[in-house]
Amino acid sequence: MSPDPGRAFTVEPWVVREPHLDLALLGQVESVFALSNGHIGLRGNLDEGEPHATPGTYLNSFYERRPLPYAEGGYGYPESGQTIINVTNGKLIRLLVEDEPFDLRYGSVHRHERVLDLAAGTLTREVEWESPAGRVVRLRTERLVSLTQRAVAAIRYEVEVLTGTHDTEPALLVVQSELVANEQQPARDDDDPRVEAAMTDPLVAEQCRADATGATLVHRTRASGLRVAAAMDHEVTGPAGLQISSEATEDIGRTTVISRLQSGQKLTVVKYLSYGWSSRRSLSAVHDQVRAALAAARYTGWAGLVEEQRAYLDDFWVTADIEIDGDAELQQAVRVAIFHVLQAGARAERRAIGAKGLTGPGYDGHTFWDTETFCLQLLSHVAPYAAADALRWRQSILPQAKERAAQLGLEGAAFPWRTIRGHECSGYWPAGTAAFHINADIADAVRRHVAATGDVEFEREVGLELLVETARLWRSLGHHDHAGQFRIDGVTGPDEYTAIVDNNVYTNLMAQLNLRVAADTAARHSRAAGRLGVDAEEMASWRDAASSMRIPYDEGLGVHPQSEGFTDHEVWDFAGTKPDMYPLLLHVPYFDLYRKQVSKQADLVLAMQLRPDAFTEEQMARNFAYYEAITVRDSSLSASTQAVMAARTGHLDLAFDYLAESAFVDLDDLAGNSEHGVHIASMAGTWIAVVCGFGGMRCDSGGLRFAPRLPPALSRISFGLAWQGRRLRVEIRPDEVEYRLVSGLPMRLAHHGEPTALAGDPVVAPIPEVGRADAVEQPFGRAPKARHPGA
Amino acid sequence: MSPDPGRAFTVEPWVVREPHLDLALLGQVESVFALSNGHIGLRGNLDEGEPHATPGTYLNSFYERRPLPYAEGGYGYPESGQTIINVTNGKLIRLLVEDEPFDLRYGSVHRHERVLDLAAGTLTREVEWESPAGRVVRLRTERLVSLTQRAVAAIRYEVEVLTGTHDTEPALLVVQSELVANEQQPARDDDDPRVEAAMTDPLVAEQCRADATGATLVHRTRASGLRVAAAMDHEVTGPAGLQISSEATEDIGRTTVISRLQSGQKLTVVKYLSYGWSSRRSLSAVHDQVRAALAAARYTGWAGLVEEQRAYLDDFWVTADIEIDGDAELQQAVRVAIFHVLQAGARAERRAIGAKGLTGPGYDGHTFWDTETFCLQLLSHVAPYAAADALRWRQSILPQAKERAAQLGLEGAAFPWRTIRGHECSGYWPAGTAAFHINADIADAVRRHVAATGDVEFEREVGLELLVETARLWRSLGHHDHAGQFRIDGVTGPDEYTAIVDNNVYTNLMAQLNLRVAADTAARHSRAAGRLGVDAEEMASWRDAASSMRIPYDEGLGVHPQSEGFTDHEVWDFAGTKPDMYPLLLHVPYFDLYRKQVSKQADLVLAMQLRPDAFTEEQMARNFAYYEAITVRDSSLSASTQAVMAARTGHLDLAFDYLAESAFVDLDDLAGNSEHGVHIASMAGTWIAVVCGFGGMRCDSGGLRFAPRLPPALSRISFGLAWQGRRLRVEIRPDEVEYRLVSGLPMRLAHHGEPTALAGDPVVAPIPEVGRADAVEQPFGRAPKARHPGA
Repeated sequence: MSPDPGRAFTVEPWVVREPHLDLALLGQVESVFALSNGHIGLRGNLDEGEPHATPGTYLNSFYERRPLPYAEGGYGYPESGQTIINVTNGKLIRLLVEDEPFDLRYGSVHRHERVLDLAAGTLTREVEWESPAGRVVRLRTERLVSLTQRAVAAIRYEVEVLTGTHDTEPALLVVQSELVANEQQPARDDDDPRVEAAMTDPLVAEQCRADATGATLVHRTRASGLRVAAAMDHEVTGPAGLQISSEATEDIGRTTVISRLQSGQKLTVVKYLSYGWSSRRSLSAVHDQVRAALAAARYTGWAGLVEEQRAYLDDFWVTADIEIDGDAELQQAVRVAIFHVLQAGARAERRAIGAKGLTGPGYDGHTFWDTETFCLQLLSHVAPYAAADALRWRQSILPQAKERAAQLGLEGAAFPWRTIRGHECSGYWPAGTAAFHINADIADAVRRHVAATGDVEFEREVGLELLVETARLWRSLGHHDHAGQFRIDGVTGPDEYTAIVDNNVYTNLMAQLNLRVAADTAARHSRAAGRLGVDAEEMASWRDAASSMRIPYDEGLGVHPQSEGFTDHEVWDFAGTKPDMYPLLLHVPYFDLYRKQVSKQADLVLAMQLRPDAFTEEQMARNFAYYEAITVRDSSLSASTQAVMAARTGHLDLAFDYLAESAFVDLDDLAGNSEHGVHIASMAGTWIAVVCGFGGMRCDSGGLRFAPRLPPALSRISFGLAWQGRRLRVEIRPDEVEYRLVSGLPMRLAHHGEPTALAGDPVVAPIPEVGRADAVEQPFGRAPKARHPGA
Repeated sequence: MSPDPGRAFTVEPWVVREPHLDLALLGQVESVFALSNGHIGLRGNLDEGEPHATPGTYLNSFYERRPLPYAEGGYGYPESGQTIINVTNGKLIRLLVEDEPFDLRYGSVHRHERVLDLAAGTLTREVEWESPAGRVVRLRTERLVSLTQRAVAAIRYEVEVLTGTHDTEPALLVVQSELVANEQQPARDDDDPRVEAAMTDPLVAEQCRADATGATLVHRTRASGLRVAAAMDHEVTGPAGLQISSEATEDIGRTTVISRLQSGQKLTVVKYLSYGWSSRRSLSAVHDQVRAALAAARYTGWAGLVEEQRAYLDDFWVTADIEIDGDAELQQAVRVAIFHVLQAGARAERRAIGAKGLTGPGYDGHTFWDTETFCLQLLSHVAPYAAADALRWRQSILPQAKERAAQLGLEGAAFPWRTIRGHECSGYWPAGTAAFHINADIADAVRRHVAATGDVEFEREVGLELLVETARLWRSLGHHDHAGQFRIDGVTGPDEYTAIVDNNVYTNLMAQLNLRVAADTAARHSRAAGRLGVDAEEMASWRDAASSMRIPYDEGLGVHPQSEGFTDHEVWDFAGTKPDMYPLLLHVPYFDLYRKQVSKQADLVLAMQLRPDAFTEEQMARNFAYYEAITVRDSSLSASTQAVMAARTGHLDLAFDYLAESAFVDLDDLAGNSEHGVHIASMAGTWIAVVCGFGGMRCDSGGLRFAPRLPPALSRISFGLAWQGRRLRVEIRPDEVEYRLVSGLPMRLAHHGEPTALAGDPVVAPIPEVGRADAVEQPFGRAPKARHPGA
């Protein structure tokens, strides 16, 4: 099986196979083949370390501080940022064949295949390599980052000597399995020598120990003062006479296995790895913690870890799997997307879910609104424990968010636009601090999670506080104007090509919901709310602000302006913009983007997805058409939202094209930057496009609703979800849909507005005709790649 | 005579006297006592160099490049800035008395007085100092930067041995007169080590030469590649037996005079200094140039230089002097202000006039809109040659301004917000690049200069091109909306507490005038306009944009919003803002300032000053009152504008208070930062407040108009101005005004709207009653200091 020209991978339903190595695609493949459990992330680097695009071993929230410089400073600008760093690399296993290092850039590669198995949660590799001296070896390796043992990763490394051209003598093999701290990194793009200095050799050695079959290294970051320990242990099987020894120096732990192999003989090394970090625990505590995790891993054994991994994923896929009939590529891409979102969040456990997960150093490892607005839509329905933990993380950074609000002269909490550990790390406030909508996005994720799980305890212990503090923010951020309308001025909405505007419709609608839900929730949990200082007067003030919220509307055009005055602005000269000018932010000053009608990404359209109750069907159709014509999708967050609203407004082919754009962002490297890590939010958006777009799923306090529609390109879509302790599966066929309760108590749902009871037997319901929608147009040259039939 | 407590200076009409040295005020006094001719600037550092606040020797436009760092970069952000540097210090003369260095921090200072003489253009100093060993010397020094010989400065240094406690023996004195390059500077506020590195030892030695009585040093800047030469020569008189020798090393030229003086004997050293710099000329060319200037200075001699200086200033003051009866402090301050504006521009000769002139390193030595909007209002009427040269400088940087416009996707020229040599040096675009009004400000300075001088050749050769290229900018920056109105969106007006707004009234009115005047001027000079590619169609498009310019108006409040939607914003909580929170930008994020009604400085009010034709008298009164209540004057540019509009709207006492605030900005260090250099624009504003405020002067193509009013605090104001080859003097008395033609042909002017002919005899006209104006209020705690009688 061979991939299409220019693609790295073949098309198969449950695996991503790279049938041969293409060094030009190395960075992208390292990201797609990254393994993670949300706590540990290992990029898909080759076992032997080189060649590489970006060596990457990450621990969630393990960062170094770096200075944020300004040509002209300002009050409240963050002075230092947080950058995820490449920690001690434990995936490194070097091989010496006779006196020649195993390196694919030398000798001959007879075969090289890697497979990411989405059902097994492993990355396997098979190589046949002939050394420059003519020795042929076969390497079989398998790697996993355990979803069941959070601190553990493991590698099974098998090398076999094959019959080569000079095989009269047995071959002497040396396997060096290592832990390497302060690996040399490729140069960063920004040429700031201070940042470079801060990020070069960020780890200071604290302890190194070796025993017979392994080693432990403990380090501390220079500026942020975080401590990390990495430990390894090995099980080796091979011909008699093999020798094992280990050593450790400050930045290197090394276990060396020496063996002489006849043709056909194999040497197998199982490497157990464990990681731990802390900002507070002592050296010996962190050291002991990783040794204990390592002992547990070794006790479980390689086969045990593999078995646990598959069992975890089997259970996951029962709910999470989406089956797509009619487009094999899309089927694969959708599964890859769901798999990577799971990897990003599964065991993050009250730490952030980054925009790139733990797959690469992009965006400095920061977390944005992506988590709540995109990832949690999915996770609340397929891995609710992970969604709950992500929101518990937000609760844990409330102290920083409240401090930030106070610094900005505001009440409540102002969550950081980008962060790792809770401090604002945005160095450009018009597209950072001013994007206050992130606070409503977090509140809405709370609302949705509670609706999806029915978890009242979570609502009381976690959700309420987040809702209250964000509502307080909005109440202090807005004000009533002369006419009594509640305005939110001078903020930035989702569209990053427009900034510092008044009454961004998305922001105001989300803030309105935030205020309402906070008041409702506080009323339901009045004692807990009282402990947060909420009284009736405050709740009334939230309701009042919500009910008088200003939502601008352009009567002349019959559309909602994205923000006050937006539709009066000059429309961007799309016809005069050459294709190589995109993304515009790299070729045009913000000044020009901000003042014209051009949207980087869905903004008003996202408001319609998340607040459909605030728009009539006619407004949705007109707004969708209006913003389609000026949205250039220079953000990978946009396509999935456009897919949902295209489906809702009857543009099923267009919705399908947008779904595809969202789904293939990393498999086809559509944004050209997958090497920095995969686009977790776009992957989550892929699920959203299917489930909320074609499934028409909406889940709120009114229950679970569907409005399924099958795009002409497909013959069947089946998706599942968890809802209030139940598991459902929904199968959309051309003219009908089948709802099936996989487990749990009988329930009610709405099908295209019709209340429907669901119990033991599946319910089949007809899909109403889709009305004819007027054609919409994208900016010149910016239509999504047509994938739908007849395109 | 002693100054008031806390003040450095005594009050005298024509001099600024510092009767004793206060080290706490050293920085402020260094700035106020800076001498400059617009080409060379010497801060008022002590002859012996130390103690100092900031040693400063500047050459107009001689700068070093430094990196501009960004936490998050963006397209079109300038990557490097330009910073004025301290060049070779030639004012240094050290003295050794026996074996003890003359240093005011040791021994006893019996007397120390310095005097800046505004009529002589000199800084003199008299010191009696007793060395720790008991030797008493009297030092008399006098310093000038020649207004007649542009490359020359000179110092007369006289030391006399007085009868002291141990005066039995003659005293051995050693005078070391030096040129010092790469002087050690006080640390900069910003802690960016890269900037620090760029600015430490910026000069690379190219040549050093000494002869018997002097030396020459040639250096080149490390990054910007500019070459500077400094040369000195000396005339020494003293008792027989004195010895003179000179030496030169890379960064130091030194002439040493040794003499043994009996009590009562004097040693006199006259030091001639010359400076030259070039970005293109060869080492020997620049070297020879400064030696030639030095030869000319020595030929002229000390007495000759002093005489030329006074003659130049005598002529200047005939036109420029303002006499104030009734407030001696203000009288002095007004003269200081006029003197410093002259110093900043007199011999700048097609180089920039910086915001601090050449008096300190503030704002990196950059030039802003201050030059055109403030300084040139004055210079076009009191030193028109300097105003013309400042605008010729703008013409000379048109290539960079056109390049910048192209980079921003615009037509015509986009002048830099801040620069030394024409490149945009602003590191924060919302308050830099977005402040496009600077282009209209330049155009308006052209219009005013032509009106003031009637210089048709200047209009054709210089003005036309500036008007055309700025008109082109506006035409491409704005667009016609659905209703056919011409909008200018997403720009920043003068008020730096509001940014990136639509239809800033100031900007739109000034752009409107720019477009109209460009069309009119092009029509008058159609051949020259044709050479610039202007045709009838383009002129029509300018007129069309001007005539359909959108000027927002708030019908509900009956005022002009500063920009679209401004009056809908929340009003700043002035009552809740403590006095130590000002200036707000140091204590509040831009985010919060931008979204609320709070003005750093006059914006709409400045529009009323410069475009009174666009407002009714009632609108002016209402607008003035409205913006008084929200303008905090965190910019020193604001008070003078408020003075003018207060006078115009009948608030004469308030106008007087604002005049005082403007006038005393540096003498009383009102902004707390005079040590970085004096506030040239505020000083120009002082003239504007008197002449345009109380004089009601307005000069445009319709001629010269006055509407004089005397504030109750004063009994007389007399001011002069040049107009179209004539010199006038206007004397405002309580009930009448006298217009007198000092020189030139008969003319017409308007007195309070009445056409008046003026020829040989003075014309006396009555001043109409001022109508009663409604009281206005400033933000809590931000009223100007009350100076008017009865306050």
